[in-house]
Amino acid sequence: MKRVLSKNAPKFLGKKIKVCGWVNSRRDHGKIVFLDLRDKTGILQVVSEANLVEGLRDEYVLEVEGEIKKRPEKMINPELETGKVELEAEKIKVLSKAAKLPFDLQKLNCALPKVLDYRPITLRNRKIQAIFKVQEEIISSFREALKNLDFTEFQAPAIVPSATEGGAEVFQIDYFQNKAYLAQSPQLYKQILVAVFEKVFTVTKAYRAEPSITTRHLTEYISLDAEMGFIESWEDLMDVCELTIKRIFSNVEKNCQKELKIHNASVPKIEKKIPRLKMREAQEIIFQRTQRDHREEMDLDPEDEKEICQFAKEKYNSDLIFITHYPTKKRPFYTHPDPEDPNYTLSFDLLFRGLEIVTGGQRIHQYKKLVENIKKWGNKPEDFEFYLQAFKYGMPPEGGFCLGAERITKQLLGLENIREASLFPRDMSRIDKRITK
Amino acid sequence: MKRVLSKNAPKFLGKKIKVCGWVNSRRDHGKIVFLDLRDKTGILQVVSEANLVEGLRDEYVLEVEGEIKKRPEKMINPELETGKVELEAEKIKVLSKAAKLPFDLQKLNCALPKVLDYRPITLRNRKIQAIFKVQEEIISSFREALKNLDFTEFQAPAIVPSATEGGAEVFQIDYFQNKAYLAQSPQLYKQILVAVFEKVFTVTKAYRAEPSITTRHLTEYISLDAEMGFIESWEDLMDVCELTIKRIFSNVEKNCQKELKIHNASVPKIEKKIPRLKMREAQEIIFQRTQRDHREEMDLDPEDEKEICQFAKEKYNSDLIFITHYPTKKRPFYTHPDPEDPNYTLSFDLLFRGLEIVTGGQRIHQYKKLVENIKKWGNKPEDFEFYLQAFKYGMPPEGGFCLGAERITKQLLGLENIREASLFPRDMSRIDKRITK
Repeated sequence: MKRVLSKNAPKFLGKKIKVCGWVNSRRDHGKIVFLDLRDKTGILQVVSEANLVEGLRDEYVLEVEGEIKKRPEKMINPELETGKVELEAEKIKVLSKAAKLPFDLQKLNCALPKVLDYRPITLRNRKIQAIFKVQEEIISSFREALKNLDFTEFQAPAIVPSATEGGAEVFQIDYFQNKAYLAQSPQLYKQILVAVFEKVFTVTKAYRAEPSITTRHLTEYISLDAEMGFIESWEDLMDVCELTIKRIFSNVEKNCQKELKIHNASVPKIEKKIPRLKMREAQEIIFQRTQRDHREEMDLDPEDEKEICQFAKEKYNSDLIFITHYPTKKRPFYTHPDPEDPNYTLSFDLLFRGLEIVTGGQRIHQYKKLVENIKKWGNKPEDFEFYLQAFKYGMPPEGGFCLGAERITKQLLGLENIREASLFPRDMSRIDKRITK
Repeated sequence: MKRVLSKNAPKFLGKKIKVCGWVNSRRDHGKIVFLDLRDKTGILQVVSEANLVEGLRDEYVLEVEGEIKKRPEKMINPELETGKVELEAEKIKVLSKAAKLPFDLQKLNCALPKVLDYRPITLRNRKIQAIFKVQEEIISSFREALKNLDFTEFQAPAIVPSATEGGAEVFQIDYFQNKAYLAQSPQLYKQILVAVFEKVFTVTKAYRAEPSITTRHLTEYISLDAEMGFIESWEDLMDVCELTIKRIFSNVEKNCQKELKIHNASVPKIEKKIPRLKMREAQEIIFQRTQRDHREEMDLDPEDEKEICQFAKEKYNSDLIFITHYPTKKRPFYTHPDPEDPNYTLSFDLLFRGLEIVTGGQRIHQYKKLVENIKKWGNKPEDFEFYLQAFKYGMPPEGGFCLGAERITKQLLGLENIREASLFPRDMSRIDKRITK
């Protein structure tokens, strides 16, 4: 007999089927026992005589054969897709036993550290599971959006010969008799590939030896990176970014109804264009609204990001806002200066409900300028010789952006901590288990 | 004026258009100069007066405006998609200059080390470029095949707390005050996730501190990993693997005609099922054919793999063959033993034109057996506590497989060295540039 998935069970009313899954919960009523059997499509109620299910507890893996019957009217569960039926068990086979759970897996009233200590089990909680179905949709929508625009997908290397964008926050690897590093981003490689495929993207890992514990940082995160050549204006980049974000949001809205509902989350509407503000303008607005005078600061701090998003919500009814023209000193060496004021750059961040989720901009594509800037930033051109080849031998005007997959997931679902949006989050004090010094 | 891609140029006969790209080659005929302009869609011939193109050489990036005209009959180039037309230049803008190339980029008569030294430029060679269009298709077909079978895509971590599958060939990372490692495979994580999503896959990086230089190994490679629960037999895994390979091949055949032609490569036909042989049977056949007696060996060596593929070609007209039942001692601790003979495992490799491209098998899903095996293999169960949670709390019968993306690419296109199938290959002696000790 072929296995039927639980969500399809109602189609088999009056028929005998086989279902497989985990015991999600057990309710004993004397000689009758109710089991909620969970598979990847949801829950199906199994009714059984007590003797058939002796000793079975939560998370046991079962194969159950029996007949699909209508539930009595007053037993209907409207919360459940399969809530009008139940399976009357005739034969139960234990595929795998389970130890007694250390907590209630469905209610999961634990603090985050404990949830992460038990990640292999807590991922089975349906609310947590839903996070990663949404993340899967975000990532595949990113791909879809860019493939539709004729971008080529590539795989970026993570082992790199030197620290890409400044030295401190980089992990060092013992590489045979040498040292190597974990890539802080696929930046240099995606630029190289613009001169090969013109428009490229990658779904990759980026690594930051972030020496502090915050709710916004991970040491290993999923970077959704795009880069394109032959741009006519740096604003082309924001347009492509906006299209990509729109595709992500509309796909999540369409394909993750159930998951959004579990998290009581809603997808923002982007009706017109996402508003765009220069960083200095944003600081002025923040000053006007709060009297907090950050007008000389070189960047927005987390409080500023929240405030300017609040402003965008009030003024434009927008959950998103582009902040542009960050100061040259605060951006990496390859960032293109604004020809109208070289103290600022043709760069942007996209803020979403108070948090930066995208960063991007035009790059310097002229070989000589790039070499100059590498020196100005205190690096040696010979360390960038490989990368520089791409510019020495003809690179069109180009730029790109990267989205943090965990950050979009967090903001979309209203999660409190970025760790909740990573299957196996790594930070200073945890790689799966807690690290002791 | 909006840019037109070169492959679309013939549609604009008699019209003025703008094209952008790199100078692929230049031919001077007195006052007239022919430029082959290359963009990501191909080559377009530009005819220009000499004064318009003064000083322009290979790899200059240009924006050219002019009229699309028919070529004279005898000038038609049937090798080129745009071979019946040419663009008569009226205005040329240099978007980026290029230094003089150190070799002929189109002929590229260099040894592989030099090709790799200049990777950012040599990737622009159309034969090399084609490799990565095929690889892109392989990877997206892998995803498509498994999504169609209702697998969930996940992102696997690369920073791991301990060496996954044996100790020697693992890279160590300085992780704040601790040590961490680069994942040798996503194995443990994909198994954990079977108890969450039932069927999962990932496109990820795997790392092997391979201390030798071969034509088959990279230190960083693309691993296409799948894992599934509720299998009824370990042969289900080979069936899914076979479906996946078929999808990859048929998509490459359909979507990479041009690239296959450039490499003079053909996609194998899989008409019936891929033949399946036990390793001991294969050794017996090799002995019969060659008198090379490897019948007591614990694995097939590279020569054996070639010989048994030769046999499969002759006997079954198949470019592929599954070899099954590898000895228990030669497989990792989690491999499921064959109940009929526990000295062998329910495992398989898929060989393709003489090279292993897939490895897979059923896993031990019973907690106690798994703990026993971890000890038997000389490891400490406490080092696997996190992973073991998934089994302690209910895991269905499961298994999976992984494909090496560079290996499939290499075999499909008939490349000599695995490095040719990696955009930026890493080995003992190279990370972009050559490493000096």
